[in-house]
Amino acid sequence: MKNLQVLLVLFFGSVFNINSYAQTTPKSTISVEKVSAEIRKVKFANPPINVIVPETISSLNEIIKDLSKDSTVKVVIFSSDVKGYFFNHFDLTQFANFAAQRTADGKPMWVDLITNIHSAPFITIASIKGRTQGGGDELTMAFDLRYASKELAVFEQPEVGVGLFPGGGGTNMLPRLIGKDRALEVFATGNDYDATIAEKYGMVTRTLPNAELDSFVNKLANRLATFDKTALLTIKQQLNLVAAPSEAERLASYAEFLKSLSWPGLQLRVPIFGAMYGKIGVEKLEQNMGFYLGEGNKQVQQQKK
Amino acid sequence: MKNLQVLLVLFFGSVFNINSYAQTTPKSTISVEKVSAEIRKVKFANPPINVIVPETISSLNEIIKDLSKDSTVKVVIFSSDVKGYFFNHFDLTQFANFAAQRTADGKPMWVDLITNIHSAPFITIASIKGRTQGGGDELTMAFDLRYASKELAVFEQPEVGVGLFPGGGGTNMLPRLIGKDRALEVFATGNDYDATIAEKYGMVTRTLPNAELDSFVNKLANRLATFDKTALLTIKQQLNLVAAPSEAERLASYAEFLKSLSWPGLQLRVPIFGAMYGKIGVEKLEQNMGFYLGEGNKQVQQQKK
Amino acid sequence: MKNLQVLLVLFFGSVFNINSYAQTTPKSTISVEKVSAEIRKVKFANPPINVIVPETISSLNEIIKDLSKDSTVKVVIFSSDVKGYFFNHFDLTQFANFAAQRTADGKPMWVDLITNIHSAPFITIASIKGRTQGGGDELTMAFDLRYASKELAVFEQPEVGVGLFPGGGGTNMLPRLIGKDRALEVFATGNDYDATIAEKYGMVTRTLPNAELDSFVNKLANRLATFDKTALLTIKQQLNLVAAPSEAERLASYAEFLKSLSWPGLQLRVPIFGAMYGKIGVEKLEQNMGFYLGEGNKQVQQQKK
Repeated sequence: MKNLQVLLVLFFGSVFNINSYAQTTPKSTISVEKVSAEIRKVKFANPPINVIVPETISSLNEIIKDLSKDSTVKVVIFSSDVKGYFFNHFDLTQFANFAAQRTADGKPMWVDLITNIHSAPFITIASIKGRTQGGGDELTMAFDLRYASKELAVFEQPEVGVGLFPGGGGTNMLPRLIGKDRALEVFATGNDYDATIAEKYGMVTRTLPNAELDSFVNKLANRLATFDKTALLTIKQQLNLVAAPSEAERLASYAEFLKSLSWPGLQLRVPIFGAMYGKIGVEKLEQNMGFYLGEGNKQVQQQKK
Repeated sequence: MKNLQVLLVLFFGSVFNINSYAQTTPKSTISVEKVSAEIRKVKFANPPINVIVPETISSLNEIIKDLSKDSTVKVVIFSSDVKGYFFNHFDLTQFANFAAQRTADGKPMWVDLITNIHSAPFITIASIKGRTQGGGDELTMAFDLRYASKELAVFEQPEVGVGLFPGGGGTNMLPRLIGKDRALEVFATGNDYDATIAEKYGMVTRTLPNAELDSFVNKLANRLATFDKTALLTIKQQLNLVAAPSEAERLASYAEFLKSLSWPGLQLRVPIFGAMYGKIGVEKLEQNMGFYLGEGNKQVQQQKK
Repeated sequence: MKNLQVLLVLFFGSVFNINSYAQTTPKSTISVEKVSAEIRKVKFANPPINVIVPETISSLNEIIKDLSKDSTVKVVIFSSDVKGYFFNHFDLTQFANFAAQRTADGKPMWVDLITNIHSAPFITIASIKGRTQGGGDELTMAFDLRYASKELAVFEQPEVGVGLFPGGGGTNMLPRLIGKDRALEVFATGNDYDATIAEKYGMVTRTLPNAELDSFVNKLANRLATFDKTALLTIKQQLNLVAAPSEAERLASYAEFLKSLSWPGLQLRVPIFGAMYGKIGVEKLEQNMGFYLGEGNKQVQQQKK
């Protein structure tokens, strides 16, 4: 993993203006707005492309745990403050730091975060107005309800195409929602899925025209805010019992992800995608991830010959 | 539960012309028509709004058990004789009686009914031409095949909005059919779902234009009636093994429902909805349940302030 | 089973030009084309109607096992060389031979084949340009990704209508993909499902206009061929862990199928469908299987009266 880290910093470092691994403690911004006694809005921002950094995970985990202690909160809406992106993938320069993130009792913090979202005594609603990719998309799948902008939402899992295993819980959740074959297509191909096909497959609860999304979500939140908290919590818990992946299952997936960090196929692809980020530009590449994932792998193929 | 019963009778009693709990033994009408040696039609009626009363459960259970003993029966079609409604929710004045309904060996009779429908040696078909709500909708989910009138069918689960847990088996079945997030939306919001979205989500097998529904169902029943009974029974049993919730799972849900009868949130809402029935009128309220469920909870919210 | 075999040969024998059971060793043609180091195309042909014969199962199993040993293979595309059909149902004259097919350690070879497809270290893609029925449709469900021609693909399970149990694994897979009620409709009615409804139900991954299907599948295969094999294999394995039926479950289904070979309802239907093949013609009957399945059972019904 040491070598990988060096490689990752070497090739992705410059793209994100990181001079040295040891000195970096990248931070994202997560704000919590109190809409009413019962409703909170959690907004995420990490310009320019809303990558999840280790601090995102620990901050978000603390926010979920804090809100869980507030007996008045019934609904929490998650959205993004960065145009074009909902929660995006993990920061590619931070894998060693992600791998090191543990709770006090040694559980991977990411797994703990997903567990805490599942067990939180309020309804979580994702309002998706941009791309959500990789670990960000797996986080999205953990929210109770997911409403996507017809025009702006795009879903994509680049891990397999980069040579990684997507171990953030998505492989446990998605086949339960959309069936094994469609889930395999999503994860194996790394193609872009726009909101229309995401809704058709069942990756999101509903899509709405972008102009109507906010009012739809707010109306829904306001409605639920008047309902009995015990009733809301119990319906969530009971549906989780039937249909949510267990923490044990998600821990096994996360272990596969950690293992995949040392796959040779990843190390082969890191310099190629690193160079591609430099050449194409971060935003253009991210906004066409499905396409460039294919282009990068074509280069891998040619290199082998 | 005693207090609740008093409250429920106090506020719903007048609406349904019930003078006192002890004196009431409300009855519905369930007829069994022999269409042919192999086909039966079970028609339910309890005007004006087709609520399920305790007698509905015991009668329906006896009918299912009787038909199960008839080796010639291959298909049983369930429909309603009351315009505007398929099986509607439980009679709100009868919760204490529902809770007391047990089989000879102490099993909740509702759970036994659903088990008997699942294990009945014939194919059950629901022909849905109106609203099905609450426990009625959960009963509907227990039928093998569900065909809904595009124009007339509406699906709604008011329990959470009233401050109850919907423990009739629907929380076990629906997430298996439509995924956890969409099932949560259905149960948590208590909104109306018309046939189009119900079909899109996968809550029903198919929708048909109302003018074609009867002939579609009859044609299907006639086809199956010519098939080998052992083959029909075995395919039903084997698919249940893979995809039907176990009785143990449904017993646990029912226990949650019984527990929910003493939730303070329910007792807070009973007088408000009781008054609302009186003011709006039963049929208008029932036909706009999703809307009035929200209105009632707005009043709960205002009352708290 | 001896009597059944005699009956089957008696009535289906002439249709398929088989003079005597002992002398027949019907063969299909399965070719493996090396498209590139990473991609293979497996083409199946058994004119005129592409039935699966015992040799198909053993040959296909050997091919899967051989390709699984080739570390360069990442994608295998399955298609048909016979117009109008993808993999069709089992050869109706060969049931005794199918039942006798075992692996060295006594496992039913069909179950072993499906297990080997599930565990093969490459992505399997079905390119479906015709009818797939019965065991052929169950084989189709075992492939990782399934792309169907909008105009030409038709899915049908005749077993229940013939008086058999479809024990090839389909009853384990399909309810996981499309829900219990829709799976029951497919298996119990034996109706034809065109590509549009198959996609709507989720029986196939996607449908494509026939003119675009080949290029879609080839593009997908070429993309996956450039990805890391370990990553592709792991994502397939992990999704199977969550969502594929176990071999134990499929063995139990296969045992039900073997049992069903001695059901009286089958023996009643064999002469009727045998005569119908002779009268209607094999291809016309096969291309309208859903319809003629109903017609044959009407005759069964009339015979009883």
